Amino acid sequence: MVQQIRMNHLTGKSILITGGAGFLGSNLAHCLCALGAKVRVLDSFHPDYGANSFNLKSLDGKLEIIKDSILNEQRVTSLLEDSDGVFHFAAQCSHVDSMTDPWLDLEYNSKGTLVILEAARKSKKKPFIIYAGTRAQIGAAVETPVSEHTRPNPTDIYGVNKLAAEMYGSVYSRVHGIPFVSLRFTNCYGARHQMKNPKYGILNWFVSLALQGKPIKVFGTGQQLRDYLYVEDAVDAMLAAGKFISETPKSDPKIQISGDRISFYVFNIASGRTIPFVDCAKKIAEYTGATLEMVPWPKDREAIETGDFVADISAAEQILKWKASTSFDVGLQNTIQFYKENLKAYL
Amino acid sequence: MVQQIRMNHLTGKSILITGGAGFLGSNLAHCLCALGAKVRVLDSFHPDYGANSFNLKSLDGKLEIIKDSILNEQRVTSLLEDSDGVFHFAAQCSHVDSMTDPWLDLEYNSKGTLVILEAARKSKKKPFIIYAGTRAQIGAAVETPVSEHTRPNPTDIYGVNKLAAEMYGSVYSRVHGIPFVSLRFTNCYGARHQMKNPKYGILNWFVSLALQGKPIKVFGTGQQLRDYLYVEDAVDAMLAAGKFISETPKSDPKIQISGDRISFYVFNIASGRTIPFVDCAKKIAEYTGATLEMVPWPKDREAIETGDFVADISAAEQILKWKASTSFDVGLQNTIQFYKENLKAYL
Repeated sequence: MVQQIRMNHLTGKSILITGGAGFLGSNLAHCLCALGAKVRVLDSFHPDYGANSFNLKSLDGKLEIIKDSILNEQRVTSLLEDSDGVFHFAAQCSHVDSMTDPWLDLEYNSKGTLVILEAARKSKKKPFIIYAGTRAQIGAAVETPVSEHTRPNPTDIYGVNKLAAEMYGSVYSRVHGIPFVSLRFTNCYGARHQMKNPKYGILNWFVSLALQGKPIKVFGTGQQLRDYLYVEDAVDAMLAAGKFISETPKSDPKIQISGDRISFYVFNIASGRTIPFVDCAKKIAEYTGATLEMVPWPKDREAIETGDFVADISAAEQILKWKASTSFDVGLQNTIQFYKENLKAYL
Repeated sequence: MVQQIRMNHLTGKSILITGGAGFLGSNLAHCLCALGAKVRVLDSFHPDYGANSFNLKSLDGKLEIIKDSILNEQRVTSLLEDSDGVFHFAAQCSHVDSMTDPWLDLEYNSKGTLVILEAARKSKKKPFIIYAGTRAQIGAAVETPVSEHTRPNPTDIYGVNKLAAEMYGSVYSRVHGIPFVSLRFTNCYGARHQMKNPKYGILNWFVSLALQGKPIKVFGTGQQLRDYLYVEDAVDAMLAAGKFISETPKSDPKIQISGDRISFYVFNIASGRTIPFVDCAKKIAEYTGATLEMVPWPKDREAIETGDFVADISAAEQILKWKASTSFDVGLQNTIQFYKENLKAYL
C-alpha cells in the first residue's frame, strides 16, 4: 500500500543494487522491478555470503545482473556513470568471520564502500547512495533506547568497519556533495535469506533448522532484547529513503559549507517492538513443531554479544514518514510459508 | 619532574615505538632511553611523512632502529613477541592527502593498526598498546567541550580511519584481552616535527616559514579556537598512560565478559587552554619578526575544517594524574630555539 504511493518516484530511474542477489538486495530488486525502475544488480555471488541466483530467478529479463565484485573499481566507476541512485548492500556480513579474518572484512566493508563513493564522486550524475547500515555499529549500547545520536560502541570488527563506511559517506557528502542515507537496520528476517549457515540471520537459521526437523538451540537464557524487522517493511524503508534523498538533496540548515549544504542522513530502521530472543525462538517452535534447547554460550559468540538492543525509531517516522506495519506473527508465518515452498533452493 | 616520578616503571622494559623516527615517536624515544627502557623503533622512513634520522641521531647506540613498514605482518609479529608494550604512532597524518588518496590512508591507518593488534593477539606477552589518537576523530564537534563520551563526527577520511583503528583496539581489548589506551592528542607542536610541508602540524610550519624569512598566511579570520599542546607535555601523557595501563590491566568494573574485564581506555590529551588560531600566528610573528597575512580559505582546506575545538581534559587529570604544565609562550620559545639551532636538518 505504502509502496504504491511512492511508486511514481523511482519509475524509469536507473538504479544499481550492490549485493542485489542477497537477502535485502533481492527483495528490493523485486519491488523496484514492479515499480518500473531500470534495475541493475552487481553481485560477486561469493559462496560464503547471501547471494542466491534463485532470489532473482523470477525477474529474468526484467533486470540486468552483473557478476563482479564491488572491489573492481573500473566496473563500479562505469556503472555509476549512468546511475541515478545506488542501494549498497554488498558486504561481508558475518560478525564471527570479521573476528577470525579482519582483513577480509576491511576489504569488503571499508574499502568496498570507498570504491562506491569514489565512483559516485567521479560520476556526473552524482547518484544518491542508500547504505545498508546495521545496529552492529552501535554494538553494546551506551544508552537506551538507541537513537541516531547515540555514541557507537561496536563489539566486533564488522561493526567497526560498517560504521567507518557510513562515516566515509558523511565525509563524501560534506566534501563532494554526494547525497547519502544510512539505514541502520536492526535484525531483519523474511524471504530470500541464506539458510546454509548460522553466522548471520539467526531467525532465518532457526526456521531452516525447524523445517529440517532439527532442534533449535538458544544460547544462555535468551533474555536479551531484540527488535526484529520483517523484510517487506525493510524494503519499504529503502523506498522511503530513496524518495526522501531525491526530493531533499540539500536539506540540513544547520551544517553549511562554502554555500553548499550537505545531504547526509542516518536513520534507525527497526520495528519499534522489542522481544526477548528466547520468545522469538519459542514462536518458531510453536509454528513449526520444532523442539527448543537451551545451551551455554559458545565463547566466540559470547565475546561479541551486545546485550539488549532497543531502537528509537522516531527520526524515520518523522522524516522518512516510515513505520513498520507487519506484526511479528504475520511476518514469521509468511517467512515459514516461503521456506516451506522453497527450502531446497536455500540448502 | 613528573617524568622522574614515573621512571622506575618503564626502566628495563622492552618497548616498541612504531613511527619512532617521527615527531611524537622520537620525542618519546629520547625520554624512554633516558629512563633506561630497552627501546626499539620501527619506522618506514617514508619521505612524505615525519620520519627524520636526525631525530634519533643523538641516541645512536642507545636504541635499535628497524627500517620497515607496519604493514609487514611477519616483522611486526616477530617484534611483538618480546615487547612489553607498544607505542603506536606510525600513520598517514595528512588530512588533505587522506581526501585525495583514501586508499593509502586506509592502508596505513586502518590496516596498519590491525596488523599491530593481530600481532599483539598472537604474542604471549600480551603487550599493552598506547595508540596515538587524534582530535580529528571528533571532527566537527557535536558538543562543546568535547569529552571522551562525545559522539565522533569526523570530517575527513583520516579522522574516520583513526577512529576505526581506535575501535579495533576496543574490540581486541574486549575479545582478546589486549590492554589498549588511546590518547586523543589535540594539535601538538615542538621539537623534531617535520617542517617540509604544510599538510600537518601548522604551528611548526609557521615557525619554519618565519625562520626562513617568509610571511605567515592565516586562512579566513583565524578565529577558530584551538588547543595547542607542547610536545614535552604530550610525552609526559604517554608515560602516564604506560604506567596506568601496566598497573591497571583490567579495571573497568562496568564491562565484564566471561569473567574477564576489558582494559580499554580513551583520554583527551590537550592543554585545556583554548586560543584563537590567529593569536598563535601573531605570537610566532612576534617572537620571530615574521609578517602575518590574512588570506581566503583554499577550498580543499575549508571543506574539511572542523570549527572550534575545546577539550574536556578531566578524565586524563583524574585517571592518568596528568596535566600539561608548559605555558604556550614557553613552549613556543623552546620550539623556535630548537629550530633556530637545527633548521637545516628539517628542510
